[in-house]
Amino acid sequence: MMTAQRCNLRSTSRRLRDLGLQRATLLVDRRRAGANLARFATRARAGEVVLRPHFKTHQSAAVAEWFRQVGVTRAAVSSVGMAGYFADHGWTDLTLAIGANPLEMREYDELAGRIELGLTIDAPATLSALVSGLRQPVTIWIEIDTGHGRGGVRWDDSSALIDLVRCVVQAGAVTLGGLLTHGGHSYASDSQAAAATTFATVRRRLQASRATLREAGLPSGILSAGDTPGFAASEDWSGLDEARPGNFVFFDLMQLAAGVCTQADLACAVACPVIGVYPERHEALVHAGAVHLSLESLPSDRSHGRLLGIDGDGFATLLEGWSVGALSQEHGRLVALTDTARRELADLQPGDLVLIAPVHACLTCEQFDRYWTLDGQELPRYRRG
Amino acid sequence: MMTAQRCNLRSTSRRLRDLGLQRATLLVDRRRAGANLARFATRARAGEVVLRPHFKTHQSAAVAEWFRQVGVTRAAVSSVGMAGYFADHGWTDLTLAIGANPLEMREYDELAGRIELGLTIDAPATLSALVSGLRQPVTIWIEIDTGHGRGGVRWDDSSALIDLVRCVVQAGAVTLGGLLTHGGHSYASDSQAAAATTFATVRRRLQASRATLREAGLPSGILSAGDTPGFAASEDWSGLDEARPGNFVFFDLMQLAAGVCTQADLACAVACPVIGVYPERHEALVHAGAVHLSLESLPSDRSHGRLLGIDGDGFATLLEGWSVGALSQEHGRLVALTDTARRELADLQPGDLVLIAPVHACLTCEQFDRYWTLDGQELPRYRRG
Repeated sequence: MMTAQRCNLRSTSRRLRDLGLQRATLLVDRRRAGANLARFATRARAGEVVLRPHFKTHQSAAVAEWFRQVGVTRAAVSSVGMAGYFADHGWTDLTLAIGANPLEMREYDELAGRIELGLTIDAPATLSALVSGLRQPVTIWIEIDTGHGRGGVRWDDSSALIDLVRCVVQAGAVTLGGLLTHGGHSYASDSQAAAATTFATVRRRLQASRATLREAGLPSGILSAGDTPGFAASEDWSGLDEARPGNFVFFDLMQLAAGVCTQADLACAVACPVIGVYPERHEALVHAGAVHLSLESLPSDRSHGRLLGIDGDGFATLLEGWSVGALSQEHGRLVALTDTARRELADLQPGDLVLIAPVHACLTCEQFDRYWTLDGQELPRYRRG
Repeated sequence: MMTAQRCNLRSTSRRLRDLGLQRATLLVDRRRAGANLARFATRARAGEVVLRPHFKTHQSAAVAEWFRQVGVTRAAVSSVGMAGYFADHGWTDLTLAIGANPLEMREYDELAGRIELGLTIDAPATLSALVSGLRQPVTIWIEIDTGHGRGGVRWDDSSALIDLVRCVVQAGAVTLGGLLTHGGHSYASDSQAAAATTFATVRRRLQASRATLREAGLPSGILSAGDTPGFAASEDWSGLDEARPGNFVFFDLMQLAAGVCTQADLACAVACPVIGVYPERHEALVHAGAVHLSLESLPSDRSHGRLLGIDGDGFATLLEGWSVGALSQEHGRLVALTDTARRELADLQPGDLVLIAPVHACLTCEQFDRYWTLDGQELPRYRRG
């Protein structure tokens, strides 16, 4: 394994400098992202589950094309602005997978006039607002809370579910798409088995909601579930009609900690310039802080990232013995935890570059307006207006 | 106090809807910001301290004009891109108050050719890079670590300080501006008295650094300190030559908790649409999450914000009994903690708006590309390229 041996703090800095990087820069390893996409597309086909990936992770029309190359033709988004951006880039079937906002009727109507638009509700009040406010046809998704405890009708609240679907049926002007859930509590898993168990429960509860509606003589539409950890932890996606994971294109340290990806799946990271070295306290400073990495931290040690290696072939393994400690607005602290790391620290200088794997890729990517591939392609992202 | 009585969750929603807001929107109360600016400008004049506010909090040329109206003519910034933005908007004296990055020489040189540019160093290696890489004149600031433990030469490391200043003097090509510190540990204060004590220590240590240099027959330049809590906690700024607080224009909940501002000083907040109401678990959801508010939380209860009232006159007092709980990427949870709040929750509906006071204004403002004043003016912000 010559590659693994060659790749350390020094060689990583050299490689990043060879790429011409100067300041905090969001990098994506195209090959790794492609492998992640191919794996999930294969699983979706095997399970006969439609893949409707959530584009809030990457928010880039260029990255979306990589999804198209593995057969994806529809997506989920989390704001009307993001939906408009992807509609402008040729995506004609989008689900806004967050509770609809009655104040954005005009924007929904404009979008529904040019694409197949799905909207998400969990209460009659929102449905009423949509029905009275929209002229264009939309598909309605009923959000089910299958245990995450965020949005949705609780899976065990049969009367609320029946009432809501009855309202949809009676409204007439809208089409029922199905039951939609986000099993986001899978992010708290500490093993692949735990994530798979959560995923199984989410599926079972979604199926129970469908059964409740059938018993009441009501339609349910299809079953759609989100959350990357669940889909990553389980080879078998059966029992669902649609899968909406998003984060699987890049993965991140949170999912590595949850046991649902490997180091080789980590496909985005931030190159950061060193601006100070403090061997006496085993730390260095980078010009990359909360506004670049986000404040997300790993539950185990509250660290905000780990150092990743890079070589001529792409991202390599994590560099052992380093942690990203407290962040301020534009400063990040690199902490050398082991004797080996402390020896490497002694060689570090302002003007070196390190590569930080993010704790939560979605939040880190949100802090940048473009990605750079390792061969120097610039991939713009949507940014909220 | 009719105003205080009239202002509650319902009247706040009505007022925000009257402003025509639809989605997460960053609002600034111009009158409060103006009062904060006037107070600090008065203290600076009284103490004969030059005010060089840090513009990383607001990052807006429009807001910067408010500073100019109270006599401010110079500023600090935290990236070369931000410096370029303010230089483009007529600011001709800027200090980059973060350790210089040897990889950005070309950008520093370009800037130094058109404005008075200050750069910050804490080690000879960075100085060497600057001296060999720059053609245009710059002012060098020596960063002193007066207890924060982030960047800088430690205040008690006399030999490192003397060595570094000797290098500056011998380099010749650069001008020594002075000794610069950021007493950022004042943010951890839990009372005005504690923040004032920290501030006093910071000043004393900065003065000790100057004394060390004088004893060695070396110049020290002027003494410049940052951090809003210290300056906010202390009427008396004597013993310093330059003050670089930034956050005082808006203040925030972190500083309210530190005892260095009052509710009436909170000058920015985020209007957020309600998208779900869950009385059974005493929660509502807003479409505003980590990407709008940042993940910063209050040490006392880990909350990510509090609800603020607004009436016809501007921002009002905090609404008691509410907290902003866990955030995901685009969702925020409002938690009703008291019986009164729970009764108000029962009246809340999707399409209502709430106003969230941020924990850390700098990080929240960073998530938006513009402010809106309460009379409908749009104030664009710098955004990193």
